[in-house]
Amino acid sequence: MIPIVDEATLRASVTPERAVAAIREAFRADGEGRTRVPPVINLDIPAERGEFHIKTAHIEGMPYIAVKIASGFSDNPARGLPSGSGLMAVFDAATGLPAALLLDNGFLTDIRTGAAGAVAADELARSRIDTVGVIGSGLQARHQIQCLRVVREFHVIVVWSPTRARLDAYADEMRRGGYDVRTVNNVAELCAAADLLITATPSRDPLVRAEWLHEGMHINAVGSDSPGKQELAAECLRRADLVVVDRVAQCAAFGELRHAIDAALLTAAGELGAIVAGRKPGRTSDRQITIADLTGVGFQDTAIANAALRWISV
Amino acid sequence: MIPIVDEATLRASVTPERAVAAIREAFRADGEGRTRVPPVINLDIPAERGEFHIKTAHIEGMPYIAVKIASGFSDNPARGLPSGSGLMAVFDAATGLPAALLLDNGFLTDIRTGAAGAVAADELARSRIDTVGVIGSGLQARHQIQCLRVVREFHVIVVWSPTRARLDAYADEMRRGGYDVRTVNNVAELCAAADLLITATPSRDPLVRAEWLHEGMHINAVGSDSPGKQELAAECLRRADLVVVDRVAQCAAFGELRHAIDAALLTAAGELGAIVAGRKPGRTSDRQITIADLTGVGFQDTAIANAALRWISV
Repeated sequence: MIPIVDEATLRASVTPERAVAAIREAFRADGEGRTRVPPVINLDIPAERGEFHIKTAHIEGMPYIAVKIASGFSDNPARGLPSGSGLMAVFDAATGLPAALLLDNGFLTDIRTGAAGAVAADELARSRIDTVGVIGSGLQARHQIQCLRVVREFHVIVVWSPTRARLDAYADEMRRGGYDVRTVNNVAELCAAADLLITATPSRDPLVRAEWLHEGMHINAVGSDSPGKQELAAECLRRADLVVVDRVAQCAAFGELRHAIDAALLTAAGELGAIVAGRKPGRTSDRQITIADLTGVGFQDTAIANAALRWISV
Repeated sequence: MIPIVDEATLRASVTPERAVAAIREAFRADGEGRTRVPPVINLDIPAERGEFHIKTAHIEGMPYIAVKIASGFSDNPARGLPSGSGLMAVFDAATGLPAALLLDNGFLTDIRTGAAGAVAADELARSRIDTVGVIGSGLQARHQIQCLRVVREFHVIVVWSPTRARLDAYADEMRRGGYDVRTVNNVAELCAAADLLITATPSRDPLVRAEWLHEGMHINAVGSDSPGKQELAAECLRRADLVVVDRVAQCAAFGELRHAIDAALLTAAGELGAIVAGRKPGRTSDRQITIADLTGVGFQDTAIANAALRWISV
């Protein structure tokens, strides 16, 4: 038998600090050419309004390989079940033998996604930011903030969400976390106030227009993780001075870049790994507009599983 | 927590009879258009001479979806470890929630592969066969025979294997199983004697030449499961009256068909599912030469996992 680690144990051990360190190391490895990332498996179950995504990767120098299986079933909440779930099967990278099962119910995916946002912000946002704008009020609206505070100090959160009740609950929760929180009624107002904007919705229609971007702004777009989703108008990508993606192949297939009206944008987009590894520049002036299009890459799953097994005695 | 089922429990429950029934049902569902099969993930770890394969599928009408992760690491035996391993993570097809972990160490893959051979033989081999030829002396040389006896009665096994010690051990084992076993020194002699030929080696060079095929023969080629492997000379596929594959998309990528010199062969090849579902004919005369090119499809993994969970109380 192999060790089975439950969600509570993982939540207690994989802190935002540890997650950000692990995900930074994964992007560095990627930028140094030390990752192997096969294409993602997407399995749709239309009759049940459900989908599975399977991601994996090898990172040279890390002892384990994770295979992450995430599911999303839209009708689950009506049955009293969570819409998203998942687990990670972990294997010894030197022998291929099963090493552990992480029954995280999606927690590790949530925190590694938050951590990628923090790593992107650390490379691309201005070093001093006061106000963080958040579009959305779900799990990622929380994880992005929890991880971002590892790399940036900020005091004001401005938030907009299409769901009023969830918006208020989120605002209350963030206030209890010590932030000065303001809810707004439209995205234009939110963009005007935000030094750093996080878009974390499952929107299928663009929410952010190019004319709302302003000098010095950085955007982490983390909601568009499958074909059909889009949060930024395609013109935003053209207006930005620097567009960075977690993985060109994925972003071209199902990230914001998929909607880019200009194919040249795709060519110009750099990968975050190259910036973390110091092979390409990140932000070079406080006036630039920068965008990170983050879809979630298998090496993040392998890195977070390695971190979990480093901090848990199994 | 979810139920964890160990290899011994699975071996005791998933018999060849049950496996053949489950795999036949899977091919029928495929032939009736009731499967969804995303592309396989292949992850190579060249530095460790290792590889991972990940397969999954949905079968309408079956309650579970399996995600099967199989590994093969060539240097393991020198370390006293098995070269192949793996597990299946099983999910509820209606909610996406984790349902069970099958810690089979590759057993379920082995037996579902044997069962696919039996289903192919049942549709394509003559109803009366006396002599089964086996190329290879590994796990599949065993599983193919154990499953084949579910659908055909036969008494003689002729076997050739490049590894003499393993060949003798295999012959002894089959004799203890009640078969009249003859070992031969070359493949030509073996082909001449075989009514049904099983090729089950990891060969990267063709072992079977077209001129050795004879009237009425059926071949199950099960060894070529990844790019670079080949057991049949490409001319064999041209000489056969009927070439059937488990899945055209896979066989074109890494089965015997990949080596077919004539692209028309690929177009002409039928899928086993269509035959099991009665939508295409299988063997129509005792004189035909038939070949089944079997690479292993995700719906077999989902079907065998469903069978396991049907027969085990979890």
